[in-house]
Amino acid sequence: MAMTISGNEKRPEPLALASAVEALAARFGNRLITSHAVREQHAHTTTWLPTQPPDAVVMAQETADIQDVVRICAKHTVPVIAFGTGTSLEGQVNAPAGGICIDLHDMNKVLAVHADDLDCVIQPGVTRKALNEHLRDQGVFFPIDPGADASLGGMASTRASGTNAVRYGTMRDNVLALKVVRGDGEIITTGTRAKKSSAGYDLTHLFVGAEGTLGIISELTIKLRGIPETIAAAACSFETVRGACQATILAIQTGIPVARIELLNAEQVRACNSYSKLTLPETPLLLLEFHGSANEVAEQSKNFKEIAGECGGGDFTWTTKPEDRTKLWQARHDAYWSVKALRPGAGVVATDVCVPISRLADCVTETEEDLKRLNLLSPIVGHVGDGNFHCSLVCDVDNADEMARGEDFMHRLVERAQAMGGTCTGEHGIGQGKQKYLKAELGDEAIDAMRALKKALDPQNIFNPGKIVPTV
Amino acid sequence: MAMTISGNEKRPEPLALASAVEALAARFGNRLITSHAVREQHAHTTTWLPTQPPDAVVMAQETADIQDVVRICAKHTVPVIAFGTGTSLEGQVNAPAGGICIDLHDMNKVLAVHADDLDCVIQPGVTRKALNEHLRDQGVFFPIDPGADASLGGMASTRASGTNAVRYGTMRDNVLALKVVRGDGEIITTGTRAKKSSAGYDLTHLFVGAEGTLGIISELTIKLRGIPETIAAAACSFETVRGACQATILAIQTGIPVARIELLNAEQVRACNSYSKLTLPETPLLLLEFHGSANEVAEQSKNFKEIAGECGGGDFTWTTKPEDRTKLWQARHDAYWSVKALRPGAGVVATDVCVPISRLADCVTETEEDLKRLNLLSPIVGHVGDGNFHCSLVCDVDNADEMARGEDFMHRLVERAQAMGGTCTGEHGIGQGKQKYLKAELGDEAIDAMRALKKALDPQNIFNPGKIVPTV
Repeated sequence: MAMTISGNEKRPEPLALASAVEALAARFGNRLITSHAVREQHAHTTTWLPTQPPDAVVMAQETADIQDVVRICAKHTVPVIAFGTGTSLEGQVNAPAGGICIDLHDMNKVLAVHADDLDCVIQPGVTRKALNEHLRDQGVFFPIDPGADASLGGMASTRASGTNAVRYGTMRDNVLALKVVRGDGEIITTGTRAKKSSAGYDLTHLFVGAEGTLGIISELTIKLRGIPETIAAAACSFETVRGACQATILAIQTGIPVARIELLNAEQVRACNSYSKLTLPETPLLLLEFHGSANEVAEQSKNFKEIAGECGGGDFTWTTKPEDRTKLWQARHDAYWSVKALRPGAGVVATDVCVPISRLADCVTETEEDLKRLNLLSPIVGHVGDGNFHCSLVCDVDNADEMARGEDFMHRLVERAQAMGGTCTGEHGIGQGKQKYLKAELGDEAIDAMRALKKALDPQNIFNPGKIVPTV
Repeated sequence: MAMTISGNEKRPEPLALASAVEALAARFGNRLITSHAVREQHAHTTTWLPTQPPDAVVMAQETADIQDVVRICAKHTVPVIAFGTGTSLEGQVNAPAGGICIDLHDMNKVLAVHADDLDCVIQPGVTRKALNEHLRDQGVFFPIDPGADASLGGMASTRASGTNAVRYGTMRDNVLALKVVRGDGEIITTGTRAKKSSAGYDLTHLFVGAEGTLGIISELTIKLRGIPETIAAAACSFETVRGACQATILAIQTGIPVARIELLNAEQVRACNSYSKLTLPETPLLLLEFHGSANEVAEQSKNFKEIAGECGGGDFTWTTKPEDRTKLWQARHDAYWSVKALRPGAGVVATDVCVPISRLADCVTETEEDLKRLNLLSPIVGHVGDGNFHCSLVCDVDNADEMARGEDFMHRLVERAQAMGGTCTGEHGIGQGKQKYLKAELGDEAIDAMRALKKALDPQNIFNPGKIVPTV
């Protein structure tokens, strides 16, 4: 059983597709791949959405390759889908109407690092870990960490964020400028390296989060930060989710510049203890990270500890030792695997809602009650400084009844978040899976506007059709 | 003599305009104003651009008023221009094709404050000072300070920023969601109160900076911050502009979270000394502000003082006393008036370029040399943490030769900034005055994209025509 998607995109004419593939083969030789395995791999999804492979994959090596693929696809009106690492979560790399996938893996060059300006210029296939490896010697780093070692082009396209967005923002806040290949193969430059600008419509932020539906990102200029002098990690257990959320609100409101503040509910702590061989108290837990000078970090920790005490927090442990920090955060990063291990062979799907922080405790608590009522297994982790949390829903994909309860749960979760003034997706994007929630969230007028923008910048509807806004 | 603008926007048909004004009069009674003085006042510009008044002004009181004005204007294809406080700097409120100005001054209600969530919902006519007055008791504030007591709708529309953008970002970073009246009078909702979202195209940031050319903002949801426990101000003189810029780079790179870091060149310090009765050393000066706990602020100041010492800074003075802080910052805020006083009766125009911070010293130094060569008077102030600076160019508007040298200087300034990877406008917007620089900065493809977006969302070209991208 698979989750339902609209799936009413029209495939290209068979002759047009054949002509496009022929032209691509002539241009790219063995960098055009049509084998079943490679096509399937390029539409792999990490949800329950069905895999919809493209008709062929082109391994791009430089911007001119992207331009030529787009020109050939435009000539024959064939879809073109950008692929980074395939770690998106809502079917963004699926090819519901077939077409050509451009794999950007080999476009992985760091083109320039401007440490004084705290920016760098990169190709879209650079992954965040490779980038930080490259930057380390220069005293700077790129802060966005969505968990997966995703490509920066993909992270920009889904407006990704993750554990330290609470301090450093999301991809929206960290992309200065883009180069984007448009439908005729020419390149749009969206901005400069200036840290701020009021020069016309904000094209940069129109392409950030557009999931490749308006053009293909061929180059990014992104912001960097100085590596903090001191990094400290802390863990603090709470009696209730509400206490943990209240401590988070107070920390944010009093301006403690936490770099990370992550909630694990009791069920998630149990899973982590089991998987990562830890002995954390099996109650709601906040994991924190502080960045700054030694004094700043000590003061931040002290201030947070006081707040935590007022909110029913206990067992506050604190460390600046890299090995202890690593152990704590490794457990957090392995949360997905700890959930997978709870019921080997079952499917795990990550949900992604975000609410105003004052409603977070209500939203998480009601969600826990709903899971109990529906008899579903789903530990919860949250980037709670932003009001964003994920349920890792475990279901046996062969159990129709459990899958139906799972789908029901996910609909109710989104409705609950939206009713609280929140969004159906904090950081995973719309892709195919969340299209059905956009109308309730923003209304018909916003969808009309999105449809008009899509038509304005991609009149042929060749760029990743069937994503974000249904076009048919 | 006035600066040249394209001015080739077509006026509406006289009969259509008369019909629109008649319908507006029937709907709004004496809230429709056609007197010469009021019309002139609503197109007042603070540059050398000529004043181009609208044909009538409507005083809006609620969202339904905006909707009705737009519907009537759309029916008769008559331009509609939003007006907040008239403090924009590039002719944004001019009416080159005539039409109807909607004055939003009376739409000044704070609709909701969510202190726990650090956000509030306001009408577009609320000014930043009124907002902060309203918020004061709740321990929160809105940080963006462009100098003028501008309306928040106008600040969003020009993507304004100002002295503390270095820490708190620009309007781009501080608008969570908007309601926007579109061409048929219906309302687009662009987002929710969630702190982050990946739900489709970023409509919010398309309207931020669109200068009212894509619709009229009728409501804003904006981010707030907790009022810092301690605020300290500091002043530090430098031997050279280069030394001051180098200290700024080091402060940013080492992550000192300065709330404000403002450069005044020697000429500006002389003007301030004279106007504000101060005795500052007449060399390049940095004015700083630090926000945080008492300890944090003390440490930030100490760390900055060390950096300043390495960069040729001396005379570092530091204070947390409100009266001393006020005196120092009052001088900075009065910089414009201090320049006006240098040559009473002359015109003063504010330029606005922004470059990567590593090029700031070069850009300011070359600009000073250019002013000297052209025999022009123009003190310089800069939001140097962002690489953004303004020349306050003083010219006798009746002296054609001086005005010609002034225009020449301004062109060269923009070209210099763009050649250094910067932008023609950091925070004032494009309006009418900067249109001619967009192509050199972003290229034809970006302008094509902007034109396509304009056409997609305003096919009738009724929203503030003749701004940002030339449409004729």
